Amino acid sequence: MYHSHLYFKTDYLFWGLYTLLTRFTVYDIPLKSILYFDKMGSESRKTFLPLDPMSFTNESKAVVDFIADYYENVEKYPVRSNVEPGYLSTMLPELPPYCPESLKDILKNVNDCIIPGLTLWQSPNFFAYFQATASTAGFLGEMLCSDFNVVGFNWISSPAATELKSIVLDWMGMLVKLPSSFLFAGTGGGVLHGSTCEAAVCVLAAARESFERAWWVGTFRIAIEDDMKSGLVPLFLCATVGTTPTGAVDPIAELGEVALKYKLWLHVDSAYAGSACICPELRHYLDGVELANSISMNPHKWFLTNMDAVIPLSRRFRALKLWIVIRKHALANLMYHIQSDIAMAKCFEALVRKDERFEVIVPRKFALVCFRLKPKMKEDEWNWKLEAINSSGRAFVSHAVVGGIYVIRCAIGATLPQEHHVVNLWKLIQEKAQSLLTEN
Amino acid sequence: MYHSHLYFKTDYLFWGLYTLLTRFTVYDIPLKSILYFDKMGSESRKTFLPLDPMSFTNESKAVVDFIADYYENVEKYPVRSNVEPGYLSTMLPELPPYCPESLKDILKNVNDCIIPGLTLWQSPNFFAYFQATASTAGFLGEMLCSDFNVVGFNWISSPAATELKSIVLDWMGMLVKLPSSFLFAGTGGGVLHGSTCEAAVCVLAAARESFERAWWVGTFRIAIEDDMKSGLVPLFLCATVGTTPTGAVDPIAELGEVALKYKLWLHVDSAYAGSACICPELRHYLDGVELANSISMNPHKWFLTNMDAVIPLSRRFRALKLWIVIRKHALANLMYHIQSDIAMAKCFEALVRKDERFEVIVPRKFALVCFRLKPKMKEDEWNWKLEAINSSGRAFVSHAVVGGIYVIRCAIGATLPQEHHVVNLWKLIQEKAQSLLTEN
Repeated sequence: MYHSHLYFKTDYLFWGLYTLLTRFTVYDIPLKSILYFDKMGSESRKTFLPLDPMSFTNESKAVVDFIADYYENVEKYPVRSNVEPGYLSTMLPELPPYCPESLKDILKNVNDCIIPGLTLWQSPNFFAYFQATASTAGFLGEMLCSDFNVVGFNWISSPAATELKSIVLDWMGMLVKLPSSFLFAGTGGGVLHGSTCEAAVCVLAAARESFERAWWVGTFRIAIEDDMKSGLVPLFLCATVGTTPTGAVDPIAELGEVALKYKLWLHVDSAYAGSACICPELRHYLDGVELANSISMNPHKWFLTNMDAVIPLSRRFRALKLWIVIRKHALANLMYHIQSDIAMAKCFEALVRKDERFEVIVPRKFALVCFRLKPKMKEDEWNWKLEAINSSGRAFVSHAVVGGIYVIRCAIGATLPQEHHVVNLWKLIQEKAQSLLTEN
Repeated sequence: MYHSHLYFKTDYLFWGLYTLLTRFTVYDIPLKSILYFDKMGSESRKTFLPLDPMSFTNESKAVVDFIADYYENVEKYPVRSNVEPGYLSTMLPELPPYCPESLKDILKNVNDCIIPGLTLWQSPNFFAYFQATASTAGFLGEMLCSDFNVVGFNWISSPAATELKSIVLDWMGMLVKLPSSFLFAGTGGGVLHGSTCEAAVCVLAAARESFERAWWVGTFRIAIEDDMKSGLVPLFLCATVGTTPTGAVDPIAELGEVALKYKLWLHVDSAYAGSACICPELRHYLDGVELANSISMNPHKWFLTNMDAVIPLSRRFRALKLWIVIRKHALANLMYHIQSDIAMAKCFEALVRKDERFEVIVPRKFALVCFRLKPKMKEDEWNWKLEAINSSGRAFVSHAVVGGIYVIRCAIGATLPQEHHVVNLWKLIQEKAQSLLTEN
């Protein structure tokens, strides 16, 4: 359920001291409360309307304007936040208020204190990690989901939530052309999970339930046979379509044959690249999926669906969001989004290859380019240089270590980048590389 | 991460048949795609702007108006949906669209097809389960969270997300007067979890890590000693403040002494009633919490904070939502919300007690009243009568079985109920009871 807060006592060392502080800090609140109480009066509390349509409309529209303004100006902020750890507590009210604050004051705090501390995942100059793509459609779906605020823990607790989930997960399966054995309309069906981690745990449990054997995770025939020789029982094989460090793809069909031979549960983790397979020219990466027992994908990564999570029991109506994303953008534009990202990645890759000081490290498959400055200098210096790129505030990239090699990852796929953002990123990298090479 | 879709193949029996269907269903999409392609043209795709401020503003405001209208009319719909299983797939488009659909068309579908399939958790006539309280403040926080759409998996990925979480969790702790050993400002600190289930798993892991002993969950001294005699090692004691069936409260201080004696990890699960302890007159239910090692609570239940979940790695910026809820409603109104709910529950309890045909089954502590018609009739008939209440569409209550007794749970605590809703619920129950008694 939402906001299950868990508090820990982690340290008893300073018990005495903090007990004193507690008495001061904690019991400070009721004293203030009493002071405030008179000011506020019981009348104003009796008119407390936490959800009346009129103020809901006015205040929601004020926040819409605030957000539109933020997107209008998103390129003016540093992409990666440059604040110092602990900056926020010095800027914001220390204690929770007794009397209500105005939306205007709160938004002023958001603008002045929160936004400078955001790393701007929606900036067109964000090329780090994998993206979390927001879109207007995802936002509208989120609004409706948050508004209805139903808890779909079983069918009757909100029938539409359960049923739309089946519909939209079948849509998702159809869009990437999964065999109908994976669809509700067939003999399978999809589940919305909170994370790929959760999905993996669920799949491992399902695999164990099905096979009733010991746990095992692995990838190769020799390892399997070695394990079998030493008395272990192979159970679970995980193929990845679009790994996080380099976007690599396992050959599903070949692994499927191994899985078949050794009776392993084959899971396809396509968190990043699964939804991209709506494009016919990319679908071949899922070839062999008919040999798999399960597949997972994360539409928030590249599918313009604002991020959120499912929860074990008290599920929100998030299917609504994915459903609106698919209807409002539709296959044509969703494909265009992915294809134009890949075109930009190709353009970026070409820029890297044209510069003899750099090399592309792994073959680009999707919209992720892994490259490095050729090893004329020490790794840690280049590492520092990556920091120079990011601390410029002009763009944000991340890195990976692939086979012991430190590479820069340029991940294209956020909602807003256009070709000039990618070209500017390359100029920025060249500029920083040049200054590094001059220094040496 | 959001929408990690997991697909399962659950059945190979109809493989052949469904493979045929697959070829029809799945490959129908690209054919349609080709047909649509010309209609759409590549020009319109090139102007695809999934997140431009102008259309974002217009469309978001249209959805705000839609939602305000829904709240304006929320009492006109049946509280518990009366649709039949499978109703939705017959009403909505079967296949995902190739070309974008208008927001107008989508909202028409939401209105005509989705809303009738919702069980209205935000209706003032919803008295089932525990509530999921939405509020304008929670909604505004959700909008900002969804808008920024940052992934806070570590500090640098969005510093403000990490830091505001610490601030607002300390606020929450201060509001219910936790000892500072539970606060970041002290020696502890809070965590936002996806659910109480997740919190429990985390706490069990922490307990095992700390004590390095075998697993054990229990509640009483005798059971502990019995287990110790049989060679088991007691480890974990869970006290509940506000159980789901009846709102019962375990005596934390007494259990704390047991925990101390046997060196158990004491966890306080206050999912429902924890946040209510911001009211001074309720805080005593947490007395003894200084003896506990951890405590969890769920503000979406009673704290006007729209539901959502944290996710294992890719966390959304949900602290923002709770922070705005606390600032915008503030302690005064949050206490008023809880206190007026309890006043309504007392009023309802008095109504039940005044009617000799009924009996209150467990002492009311918070805003949950558990009662039944005195056992003149068979349980299953009354069960059916509960269905008669719910299928009327006028109110929604749920039930629990307590010590073998079937009770109706009237849970007051949704955002919108006023006294007349509670009185009307009682009239409805009396009316249905009367007709049952007349039948017999």
